[in-house]
Amino acid sequence: MNIYAVLMAGGVGTRFWPRSRSRNPKQVLNIVDHDTMIQATYKRLNGLIDKQHLLIVTNYDQKEIIQDQLPDLEEDNFILEPMGRNTAPCIGLAAIQIVVQDPDGIMVVLPADHLVKNVSEFQQVVKLAARFVAENDGLVTLGIQPTEPATGYGYIQRSDKVKDLDGHSIYRVKTFAEKPNYETAVRFLESGDFYWNSGMFIWKASTILQEINEKLPEIYEGLMEIKDHLGKPDYFDKVADVYRRIRSISIDYGVMQSAENVYVIPTDMGWSDVGSWETVYEISPKDKNKNAAFCKELVVVDSAKSYIYSPDKVVALVGVENLIIVDTGDALLICKRSRAQDVREVVEQLKKKGLDEYL
Amino acid sequence: MNIYAVLMAGGVGTRFWPRSRSRNPKQVLNIVDHDTMIQATYKRLNGLIDKQHLLIVTNYDQKEIIQDQLPDLEEDNFILEPMGRNTAPCIGLAAIQIVVQDPDGIMVVLPADHLVKNVSEFQQVVKLAARFVAENDGLVTLGIQPTEPATGYGYIQRSDKVKDLDGHSIYRVKTFAEKPNYETAVRFLESGDFYWNSGMFIWKASTILQEINEKLPEIYEGLMEIKDHLGKPDYFDKVADVYRRIRSISIDYGVMQSAENVYVIPTDMGWSDVGSWETVYEISPKDKNKNAAFCKELVVVDSAKSYIYSPDKVVALVGVENLIIVDTGDALLICKRSRAQDVREVVEQLKKKGLDEYL
Repeated sequence: MNIYAVLMAGGVGTRFWPRSRSRNPKQVLNIVDHDTMIQATYKRLNGLIDKQHLLIVTNYDQKEIIQDQLPDLEEDNFILEPMGRNTAPCIGLAAIQIVVQDPDGIMVVLPADHLVKNVSEFQQVVKLAARFVAENDGLVTLGIQPTEPATGYGYIQRSDKVKDLDGHSIYRVKTFAEKPNYETAVRFLESGDFYWNSGMFIWKASTILQEINEKLPEIYEGLMEIKDHLGKPDYFDKVADVYRRIRSISIDYGVMQSAENVYVIPTDMGWSDVGSWETVYEISPKDKNKNAAFCKELVVVDSAKSYIYSPDKVVALVGVENLIIVDTGDALLICKRSRAQDVREVVEQLKKKGLDEYL
Repeated sequence: MNIYAVLMAGGVGTRFWPRSRSRNPKQVLNIVDHDTMIQATYKRLNGLIDKQHLLIVTNYDQKEIIQDQLPDLEEDNFILEPMGRNTAPCIGLAAIQIVVQDPDGIMVVLPADHLVKNVSEFQQVVKLAARFVAENDGLVTLGIQPTEPATGYGYIQRSDKVKDLDGHSIYRVKTFAEKPNYETAVRFLESGDFYWNSGMFIWKASTILQEINEKLPEIYEGLMEIKDHLGKPDYFDKVADVYRRIRSISIDYGVMQSAENVYVIPTDMGWSDVGSWETVYEISPKDKNKNAAFCKELVVVDSAKSYIYSPDKVVALVGVENLIIVDTGDALLICKRSRAQDVREVVEQLKKKGLDEYL
């Protein structure tokens, strides 16, 4: 049983402006840690996945910086997309690479920009999920035990238990729910059978291709064209050709929500998708005033509950709270914590103003 | 009639941190204008005061930067204090220099870090005040017509009118009032006979020395010792010697409040003492969201009523208002506008922490 890891690293996150830029998106930033998100994701696989079984799906713009951050990797570890087409084509493209090497290859699909605090739990649950799909086929999702009625995550509702394995339970999935409003999220939490959708999946490459064939036949057709050109000189042209015409669609919406044989393994691995500066504040260590400061020195006069990033400066706060303050060489963001999602609007405005150097 | 201007430029303002530092206090910063405060004060005297009748009282630390900013000036234009002793000794020290050159010399005492928008009104009122003291002696203050119940200024209450001169009235002063609370300030404003104390004074050098002799005899005695050493090689040693032992006291408290023959000339010259970042916000030009921004580009999402200084950066505000944001090369201040006075506390804390390079 060979396990392949597919790291999805094509995102162009705008919610971490001004630190994230189009060529420096979230996955290559050290937002929660000394390591960048993709370095942490890579290290998390140490001992679980052989290096030659690691595939990073990214784009031409980001490849170089990822190679700089993960110098162990070689050309064969990269799959390049000519443009972003959401997760279904991305996963399909990786699946055809795996299936030609190893028709029974199992693939673990992982976002490259999430946080997992409990690495041994992560490795254990991935291993048992791989064992499960090796024996049973099917599509396995990792469901995160929710700790609060979060409205920023999709949810997975479990149905009957299928099996207990190494102290974990495997359930059939009843439904996938989109990001709920607060009241619904509270209901989900109270019901006890809903989990956060982590976006981490485990399945055989052959299984997901078969599902794509059934649910997204046009994409499947394109993938088969690409498969025929694998290793040929016109491979990249073919990928570009196919990507230009296929639609952009997520694996959740395109496949998972309507598939049979979908399973969820509940796990509590200290996971976060680190979706905004607000999340970064929440997971950062804080001082007695509940400020999370990454600066040379913080001076506080009646100020609290703020996130401060200004690595080279003395920062002084007077009479303020619940702020996100991010200071880079060329830009400064001051944002109310509850408005962290709206940092995207800043990037939109910069685009409109033609301030491309700040994107 | 010779008019001498005495610019008091020894302040070590801490309320404009992080722009103001001990060696870069408010008077040498371009806080409200392209010009620095002292450059604007100097230009305001153009055509009114001969250059050789201009005296800048400052300290050794600040002399160089003031010379850089006012390259027209020569050594003789500077009076150096070895340490700050408030305004009474400062004014006395200038007065003895003037009186030895010109026993009838009139001195105009001006803080070097105030704003005056209407320069022709300023010049007119100084001229008529000088004419008045040339004929009548006495101590003349310029009283600013209040426009709001400000609690940050001292007030001068007028008594009987003495004279009308060139469209201005000259009144005897009834009382000097310290900075009032809000209710008192409202009462002052409603009474119609209170003015803001601008800290600008006009009198003969001989008159103020006589008053210092009466009210502050120890300081007078010290000044006379210094006078005896004017032009001698040990002059600076003598000044240091006297300054070490005299007390620190303001001319308002030490002389004006108890003097006879004190006059006030009401004037509306667009004056502000520019006492804090809040004042700077108030007098700065603002955009349609009432933001006053001095940065490369300002991007606003639901944000208003803030002062932003970050000359080299794109600044983005999301969901915030009533903030003061001041970004320098090595420090960043985020302050609630209503707390602008408390920026001093930041400087206190930096002192306690031994972060001297930021003072």
